[in-house]
Amino acid sequence: QSNVTIYGIIDTAVAHVDNTNAAGDSVTKVASLTGSFPSRIGFRGTEDLGGGLSAIFTLESGFGPDTGTMGQGNRLFGRAANVGLKGKWGTLTLGRQVNMTYIAGLKADVLGPNLFAIGSIDPYLPNARSDNAIGYLGNFDGIVAGATYSFGRDTSSSGGPAATGCAGESPADSKACRQVTALLGYEVKAYGINASFDKLYGNTGAAGGLTSSSNFDRRVTVNGYWMFGGTKLGAGLIDRKTNAVTGVTESTLAYLGVSHPITPLLTVDAQVARKNVKHSGDDTDMAVARLTYFLSTRTAVYGALGLMNNDGAAAIALDAGGSVGVGKPQRGLMAGLRHHF
Amino acid sequence: QSNVTIYGIIDTAVAHVDNTNAAGDSVTKVASLTGSFPSRIGFRGTEDLGGGLSAIFTLESGFGPDTGTMGQGNRLFGRAANVGLKGKWGTLTLGRQVNMTYIAGLKADVLGPNLFAIGSIDPYLPNARSDNAIGYLGNFDGIVAGATYSFGRDTSSSGGPAATGCAGESPADSKACRQVTALLGYEVKAYGINASFDKLYGNTGAAGGLTSSSNFDRRVTVNGYWMFGGTKLGAGLIDRKTNAVTGVTESTLAYLGVSHPITPLLTVDAQVARKNVKHSGDDTDMAVARLTYFLSTRTAVYGALGLMNNDGAAAIALDAGGSVGVGKPQRGLMAGLRHHF
Amino acid sequence: QSNVTIYGIIDTAVAHVDNTNAAGDSVTKVASLTGSFPSRIGFRGTEDLGGGLSAIFTLESGFGPDTGTMGQGNRLFGRAANVGLKGKWGTLTLGRQVNMTYIAGLKADVLGPNLFAIGSIDPYLPNARSDNAIGYLGNFDGIVAGATYSFGRDTSSSGGPAATGCAGESPADSKACRQVTALLGYEVKAYGINASFDKLYGNTGAAGGLTSSSNFDRRVTVNGYWMFGGTKLGAGLIDRKTNAVTGVTESTLAYLGVSHPITPLLTVDAQVARKNVKHSGDDTDMAVARLTYFLSTRTAVYGALGLMNNDGAAAIALDAGGSVGVGKPQRGLMAGLRHHF
Repeated sequence: QSNVTIYGIIDTAVAHVDNTNAAGDSVTKVASLTGSFPSRIGFRGTEDLGGGLSAIFTLESGFGPDTGTMGQGNRLFGRAANVGLKGKWGTLTLGRQVNMTYIAGLKADVLGPNLFAIGSIDPYLPNARSDNAIGYLGNFDGIVAGATYSFGRDTSSSGGPAATGCAGESPADSKACRQVTALLGYEVKAYGINASFDKLYGNTGAAGGLTSSSNFDRRVTVNGYWMFGGTKLGAGLIDRKTNAVTGVTESTLAYLGVSHPITPLLTVDAQVARKNVKHSGDDTDMAVARLTYFLSTRTAVYGALGLMNNDGAAAIALDAGGSVGVGKPQRGLMAGLRHHF
Repeated sequence: QSNVTIYGIIDTAVAHVDNTNAAGDSVTKVASLTGSFPSRIGFRGTEDLGGGLSAIFTLESGFGPDTGTMGQGNRLFGRAANVGLKGKWGTLTLGRQVNMTYIAGLKADVLGPNLFAIGSIDPYLPNARSDNAIGYLGNFDGIVAGATYSFGRDTSSSGGPAATGCAGESPADSKACRQVTALLGYEVKAYGINASFDKLYGNTGAAGGLTSSSNFDRRVTVNGYWMFGGTKLGAGLIDRKTNAVTGVTESTLAYLGVSHPITPLLTVDAQVARKNVKHSGDDTDMAVARLTYFLSTRTAVYGALGLMNNDGAAAIALDAGGSVGVGKPQRGLMAGLRHHF
Repeated sequence: QSNVTIYGIIDTAVAHVDNTNAAGDSVTKVASLTGSFPSRIGFRGTEDLGGGLSAIFTLESGFGPDTGTMGQGNRLFGRAANVGLKGKWGTLTLGRQVNMTYIAGLKADVLGPNLFAIGSIDPYLPNARSDNAIGYLGNFDGIVAGATYSFGRDTSSSGGPAATGCAGESPADSKACRQVTALLGYEVKAYGINASFDKLYGNTGAAGGLTSSSNFDRRVTVNGYWMFGGTKLGAGLIDRKTNAVTGVTESTLAYLGVSHPITPLLTVDAQVARKNVKHSGDDTDMAVARLTYFLSTRTAVYGALGLMNNDGAAAIALDAGGSVGVGKPQRGLMAGLRHHF
């Protein structure tokens, strides 16, 4: 039993958002996909193999604490299922794993996978995982470099941001559902900057109109953070080009945030973001502020306020997995409890 | 790892019941939903936050030991997925949780969730849980008070007593799938009595004919127990009014049981129950006796005999999840092994 | 917590096979069903009840490390969910469990559930489990005897070798989906031989054409192993008769293998097998060699080469769950990492 560590987060929130449809109705609900962090339970272990080499594994379930259901398209270990080797040269992992787009924003995005956050604008960002993948990540005195290669990026049936129906591993078409991601950065305690690249291909049945292996979705991101004492400033830019069956769409998503400890137990996080769809007036702006009070290092209560402003025919909901009337602004309020174990 | 405790019950039984259909056929089977207790594995923890305050969480999976499948409509943590705070003032929980109808009968119903029990007559009773719920339970020198409020009582697809297809959290109709339960009682070691109230609403697609938010199912229960030395007498009354699309049905379910330790290792439990459907002759009577032999405090073998007597067009099976010919009596026999870990 | 031990294997491999279809296309993929062993995580415990008696339980999940999905037809504990009692007289288990066909080949089949192995020829062999079963296994100074009896052998929906859609426990037809398996053998360290019998019945909706309870699939196996120092020679014969809705098929599957430790850290396993379909030229031959290097007792890397030769209209893929063009040979290569915890 000493070979396995059980860990997790259970985080639930009650949220209220307005303008959820054309009629302008509001809704109050217990958050499902995430509160301030998505709930998860995991099993992991490390074995020292000698000579600086270790074997490592992670099995991590995502679940909705509002209903007890499994996340990531009803997978037992939808957040992670991988095994690998770790040495001074870095970490090599095989299996389902987060990819470089996920890792790139970890330190720069001060709201992370909050219910109101940039994950509402681009739901792929907090779900940037790859099935059937080989991954590498290394850190050499602050120089961070990594990559993943997937033979079939998402085996689950289509049905959500984390279930996009692209199993790949197709004999007839080796490009189908392939995915490559890469990361290069420099990160020390005082500051850091990185850039990532992510290109994923489609196939018959894949979500988002990527219904052929000549369709693709490509994201390039640049992210940075700067520490001013205990206060962090974080910013990033995500440039996206989607070549779907319905045509090509190009957009950028920029975010800027600050995380400031008011007292050792009370932290405020605030972020603004803007999605600009090229050759279109369907743009979206977001502003979110969150206050977190730590009851201990493992337990916190928090509250957040947010606004998502949709121009033109944009219809991006403030809350992850939510809905909003076309072109309507959406205001939201949430309060929750988070516990790490 | 010291932050998490793993616990559970695995309980399997072989059961034989007669008159399972109009032809009067018998069946022998390995019980699925429950034996003497439903099988489950859970992860829970408590963190002392100081000042009498604790953070608590429970993640509990129900499963069928006959087949290894998940219970509660294929949920990972279908029995419980909640986090909360606990103090002298009581316990506040957020997430999927048992509600007050579940808690009300815990001490008075000597057979509890046995395969042959009142859960066969009203399958909601051993499945009285609420999704998307805020719950409170307090105990002040024996005075027990609690309540739950749910924004959407059952997110799973319709397909069984624990999967009734009512997700709620609907912007267009805030009453859809809402549920309120409440409990008040006085419980000490020697005796206890409580009363509970439970009203749940329907919506499009909900099971049991509750296909609109103006449909509801309302249960009021009164339950009590008295100890005579080590022998417990327990009784209860469940008054139910169902306003379904097919009309209004009213019924009462009364039960009376005794639990007696013949020796420190051998306990007999016996219960009779009667369901009376108002303005109808479709009534049902149940009688069950169970003998449990404890191999240790954690492991027991047991056997039970039961009879379900169906009048008129009543067709209530003796065993949870079973079937019976319309108007037929059903006799059953079961023997099982239960292990707590 | 001391009542539960968590254990498991995570094993992933990258495999390349040719001739996956009529066009002769190759595919490279991350293995799903198994690498050298199928991935699993389990919870088990033993309680000493005194007098040589113990209570035991096993709850074991199978999962695909390539995607994080549950195995065995989407069951939480698809590999095992059973509780039992153990004494000098043997072990009695109740619930979902491996049956005697599974146990019979454990020591004689040197490749076991490898991705390239006899499980590719007869997918039932590494999936020989029974739902709703009572099992017994005893060992008396090397004499091994066991049996299982199932009231309904496979409750999961039809959809793979471990999900064959035969729930049984049918009042109208008690033979539906019943299964009996038995084992008798003599096994000591230096050598062992056993024989097993397995007969399973069908019902409406069951896979493999067993759509009536008068359909059956019957396997009789004989298996043996001999140790020459640290080198094991293992062989077996599986005689099968399938009475399906489409007619009767008879076949034999013979295998012969060797497992040899080249050094304490490096082992080579090699096996040949032949499936002979009676009254038909649709036969298949298999040859596989595998090299395993142990990084520790718990962690290993391995590589394997295999060939599946299909005669006539045979179309048996080399890799478990794979595909091959009709009558084509298939060559494959795999390399993987396995970690026990």
